[in-house]
Amino acid sequence: MIRAGVVGASGLAGGELIRLITQHPDLELTFLGGSSNIGRRPAELHPNLRLDLGLTVQPVTEEVADKVDVLFLATPAPVSAQLAELLADKVPAIVDLSGAFRIRTPELHDRWYPKVKRRTDLADRFVYGVPELIKDQLADAELISLPGCYATSLTLGLAPLTLGLGLHLKTVVVDGKSGSSGGGLHLRTADLHPFRSGAIAPYAPTGHRHAGEVADFLARAKPAGATAGRIDSLTMSAYGVSHVRGLLTSSYVFTDDTVDQRELQRAYTRFYKEHRFVRVRRNTETLIPVPDPQAVLGSNYCDVTVMHDEEGGRIVVLAALDNLIKGAAGQAVQATNLRFHLPEETGLTMHPVMPV
Amino acid sequence: MIRAGVVGASGLAGGELIRLITQHPDLELTFLGGSSNIGRRPAELHPNLRLDLGLTVQPVTEEVADKVDVLFLATPAPVSAQLAELLADKVPAIVDLSGAFRIRTPELHDRWYPKVKRRTDLADRFVYGVPELIKDQLADAELISLPGCYATSLTLGLAPLTLGLGLHLKTVVVDGKSGSSGGGLHLRTADLHPFRSGAIAPYAPTGHRHAGEVADFLARAKPAGATAGRIDSLTMSAYGVSHVRGLLTSSYVFTDDTVDQRELQRAYTRFYKEHRFVRVRRNTETLIPVPDPQAVLGSNYCDVTVMHDEEGGRIVVLAALDNLIKGAAGQAVQATNLRFHLPEETGLTMHPVMPV
Amino acid sequence: MIRAGVVGASGLAGGELIRLITQHPDLELTFLGGSSNIGRRPAELHPNLRLDLGLTVQPVTEEVADKVDVLFLATPAPVSAQLAELLADKVPAIVDLSGAFRIRTPELHDRWYPKVKRRTDLADRFVYGVPELIKDQLADAELISLPGCYATSLTLGLAPLTLGLGLHLKTVVVDGKSGSSGGGLHLRTADLHPFRSGAIAPYAPTGHRHAGEVADFLARAKPAGATAGRIDSLTMSAYGVSHVRGLLTSSYVFTDDTVDQRELQRAYTRFYKEHRFVRVRRNTETLIPVPDPQAVLGSNYCDVTVMHDEEGGRIVVLAALDNLIKGAAGQAVQATNLRFHLPEETGLTMHPVMPV
Amino acid sequence: MIRAGVVGASGLAGGELIRLITQHPDLELTFLGGSSNIGRRPAELHPNLRLDLGLTVQPVTEEVADKVDVLFLATPAPVSAQLAELLADKVPAIVDLSGAFRIRTPELHDRWYPKVKRRTDLADRFVYGVPELIKDQLADAELISLPGCYATSLTLGLAPLTLGLGLHLKTVVVDGKSGSSGGGLHLRTADLHPFRSGAIAPYAPTGHRHAGEVADFLARAKPAGATAGRIDSLTMSAYGVSHVRGLLTSSYVFTDDTVDQRELQRAYTRFYKEHRFVRVRRNTETLIPVPDPQAVLGSNYCDVTVMHDEEGGRIVVLAALDNLIKGAAGQAVQATNLRFHLPEETGLTMHPVMPV
Repeated sequence: MIRAGVVGASGLAGGELIRLITQHPDLELTFLGGSSNIGRRPAELHPNLRLDLGLTVQPVTEEVADKVDVLFLATPAPVSAQLAELLADKVPAIVDLSGAFRIRTPELHDRWYPKVKRRTDLADRFVYGVPELIKDQLADAELISLPGCYATSLTLGLAPLTLGLGLHLKTVVVDGKSGSSGGGLHLRTADLHPFRSGAIAPYAPTGHRHAGEVADFLARAKPAGATAGRIDSLTMSAYGVSHVRGLLTSSYVFTDDTVDQRELQRAYTRFYKEHRFVRVRRNTETLIPVPDPQAVLGSNYCDVTVMHDEEGGRIVVLAALDNLIKGAAGQAVQATNLRFHLPEETGLTMHPVMPV
Repeated sequence: MIRAGVVGASGLAGGELIRLITQHPDLELTFLGGSSNIGRRPAELHPNLRLDLGLTVQPVTEEVADKVDVLFLATPAPVSAQLAELLADKVPAIVDLSGAFRIRTPELHDRWYPKVKRRTDLADRFVYGVPELIKDQLADAELISLPGCYATSLTLGLAPLTLGLGLHLKTVVVDGKSGSSGGGLHLRTADLHPFRSGAIAPYAPTGHRHAGEVADFLARAKPAGATAGRIDSLTMSAYGVSHVRGLLTSSYVFTDDTVDQRELQRAYTRFYKEHRFVRVRRNTETLIPVPDPQAVLGSNYCDVTVMHDEEGGRIVVLAALDNLIKGAAGQAVQATNLRFHLPEETGLTMHPVMPV
Repeated sequence: MIRAGVVGASGLAGGELIRLITQHPDLELTFLGGSSNIGRRPAELHPNLRLDLGLTVQPVTEEVADKVDVLFLATPAPVSAQLAELLADKVPAIVDLSGAFRIRTPELHDRWYPKVKRRTDLADRFVYGVPELIKDQLADAELISLPGCYATSLTLGLAPLTLGLGLHLKTVVVDGKSGSSGGGLHLRTADLHPFRSGAIAPYAPTGHRHAGEVADFLARAKPAGATAGRIDSLTMSAYGVSHVRGLLTSSYVFTDDTVDQRELQRAYTRFYKEHRFVRVRRNTETLIPVPDPQAVLGSNYCDVTVMHDEEGGRIVVLAALDNLIKGAAGQAVQATNLRFHLPEETGLTMHPVMPV
Repeated sequence: MIRAGVVGASGLAGGELIRLITQHPDLELTFLGGSSNIGRRPAELHPNLRLDLGLTVQPVTEEVADKVDVLFLATPAPVSAQLAELLADKVPAIVDLSGAFRIRTPELHDRWYPKVKRRTDLADRFVYGVPELIKDQLADAELISLPGCYATSLTLGLAPLTLGLGLHLKTVVVDGKSGSSGGGLHLRTADLHPFRSGAIAPYAPTGHRHAGEVADFLARAKPAGATAGRIDSLTMSAYGVSHVRGLLTSSYVFTDDTVDQRELQRAYTRFYKEHRFVRVRRNTETLIPVPDPQAVLGSNYCDVTVMHDEEGGRIVVLAALDNLIKGAAGQAVQATNLRFHLPEETGLTMHPVMPV
């Protein structure tokens, strides 16, 4: 058994990690860390998880290194930066779910995360990306940084265009729609049920930091055999809509390269042929239009649809995922599986639950 | 009192018309028409409206002309086309809420509404537009066609750019998000609560017919003193999200013309200075991000926000409205007020209800 | 014009009071009070209300007496107790929406509101009750205390049994279901959207304090010509369900007295004949089962249904209202209308808005 | 592998059965039956389940007997009655999720299910009950009828009082609250999202047929060593509230027997000691009040809370479950496990997913 610890055990991603780890055949939960709720059992914090684990939330010290083989950081970026510095080289594998180490270029990092101080040499050692695109790098990786929920959806949606078809995308306009769990559990009036229910909240109409991260990554990434394309401009706006779990990203893509629906469909299907967690679907293949986050809820799937809008002179790419699973805890487990040479899907084979 | 009739009394827009007319100081509801639910009282169809009007739903014949001064058609486009042909020149004013007469150019009409046969000479007589932009044409108009909910939002959002500032918009990418009441009351499995709740449904990812309508109208429209700009390309995608009432349109606008935030803000404020139903707001001016349809729900307001996304090299325009009021019944009453030389806001002064 | 002030202007009931007062033909909003958000305009706190009132939130001092004819206290009970003491005899009319003065008997008050210290002589001067049952007492009343949202619904539901038919109710089991706005805007994790959405939260499974209040009031109340009945036991449990606005109380009533459906229906209809804000409805009279808070939302109505459950040997009484209107701000305006000899419905004639 | 077939594959319970069976280590899905959607693959009907099973929906004939060891009937009661008659003695095990065989007494059956004709001798052979209470009877049972979702919740909530403590319950008043998935996928206007969202729908305020079923069963049931109590009167009212999945039953229990909180708590804990799918919880043991269906969603758990309401002179029992899992498909798999001598929890060990 691989011993796993979770820091940030009180939060939503922390709860999902506990849930997935305790259902995983090869992982054993051996540590719960946090800065609040010290001494509490998971059941008090996560009403769904009435588990008798014999664990309570503890402050994180260097001694955690004796207890875990892999440590998940479901913590705010500044905390992740500190903990990584404390524990790198002590814990065999650190998987960070925050933004602390997502952007390699120091200038870019400082611009998007001005309050997150991190050591550059440490940042350089982190492997970053969605597991589908960096499989080889993950084997035996010591420090892993995972994309955010929007960035995962966006990357999986666009990769077949740039890395698969090698297209030159002149303008990509991204519109992201997310449920309330994407924002975590901050005590803000705007996040109370009366105001968040029924909302279409334009909370980041310009300048969402996932945009830069994705464009940067897609330009750099080049899986074996891939033909990297280019993105000139990628802008993103994000909205909170009235449900809890699941997000959809819409990418409206303008390119001068010529491509038709058949080629697109084929390219996407081929690109994800070996990747069971990405399902390439047609918009009308089922009784509700897809991709809809509803249809992936509770699972590690990302559903992707690509459409050539001939009349509009553009390509429309839609991608949907469960922000707490494929966008956070599930993806972390998936990366961990690859890190420890387990089959990618170990502990992640649950079907989506629908309707909820 | 102006005698008003409503055809399509069983539907959602029909119900709103009944509600608004019976609260209006100068309108008197004298006819309820429909093809189903004949003989039923409004209270049976609209659980909120337990009114003792002495009216039941009746089939529409030419005799309705004796009973009404204005007839609202909250009917499917093919029905509106038939009724307009039957009743034009007989009823002093017909206000059509459907798409039957929205597009003047016959070819364009046939393309978007292939099943809606209408007489071209009749279509030519219809006045079309959001009341804010066609005030003068509405006075004494006999045949009025109103924009759909998305088109209203889009037009009010973009008009200050094209008609106010006279900008040349090269690319406008529109992403529309609407609650379930926008789709009416069709008995489809996808619209049942278990599937529609929690959805982000990409129901019209390409080719929404409001897109053409709006670009066409904005090119044609020229209120007194306006400097008409141009739109080269306007594409639209529409999504159903998990609430009932209210929609938001996001317009991502690319232009080579130079303009900054201050000019934009000033232009929008000036453009809507005399128009009380459009509120120009800053994204962060209140405790929730606006515009959010929540903040206009139950009212005839359209909230508009314009942002210069300097880094993204684009303008972001957001507009929110209550699709059943400013996007349908309220706008119809507003147009009727102008038609009969009443103050525009008569019977429409209710504040939005929030939170709901 | 009657000059009106609102204390607690930042809260949900405060916002509704501002909305209703500024739509009222005979009330003029002249003061906004509070202890937080000092200096802010209503539009900053209530995104729906972009009004230019020239008022900002101010601390409450004795000088408010110069500015208002009626002062609404939409404040926590302890604050209401203090303000009433400060301002009684200075302001012509005080309308308290809190629980501070609802229970007259000191022992009972102390048991349910142990932290709310109040002067007994002051408490004795307060008129308490739903306006429908205490109309005569409201004329010229100086101090008015209004029932809570659940208590209003319960009282209106049960009054025809006890006060109308004079029944002896042996056991009344009450199950109350409310949306999230009933709980106000407290920053608690359980009230954040991710946890409150989709919940059926048994937040007061036993010992809800409205229960005692209602039994106490119904025993005391005796409108002109009423035959007061008796309630031996009234227990209540309250649940938060997954919407924002509106509540339903279900009263399961056991009595040895003999009564059938026809008598019940007749008694309810007769009892509320002169009371336009109570609508007596049959469960299946419309296309959705009623009473459902949906059908009264945005209005001052309370919908009531009574059923003789012959097989179950009981009477089932259901009552639904909008907790922020008939359960709070609307009822306060209704009481104020009666206090100042205006028609009861002045400023409250809006129909419910549905669907939302 | 045990070969399993599902009839009613298009419905919500059918979809859940497909999901659970294809995740079950010892079950193999070998047949999909139905009367509509013939020829369709599961993925077309259940957007979450993009499975390559090589199965399409087929009409049910006697030949199904060659293909399955167990046949799940997720069909309307009249269909279940027909299919049971056709297939009894041919298929080794039939598990019926409908009401066709729930009530043994013919008179009682005819009263609650007047349209469901069934052979009495066949009805007598069915084993009925929640698996927790009829474990021994399930081993090798050929015909199994499972309680409905409300009945399961009610039975598990009350059994420790009657079967455990042997109390004599004079009056049990049940209030049930359910999400929209409890009503299935019928195309009714009242079930469309605009009307069902935000509803508190009193759809069965009196005379819910689960009430009789439960009282009848609890009177008959007597697991080994149990002391059967008595229920004089059990009435039930049911409401649809504004979420999709999960239900809560509240039982307000009046008894002359003496019992206190400590005894109740102990009795419940003891009663369910060996039953992992029932979790006995205190109302305030976690950060949201429990039991709340949220906390069991996606799992086969039923959470139960018992409270002695000393002041009210009653016992309050709350029970929550996922109506499609513990109230339908999960319970069916649980019964099947016991039928085939597998550990009860096989294929059902997933934790609840929260928040959704």
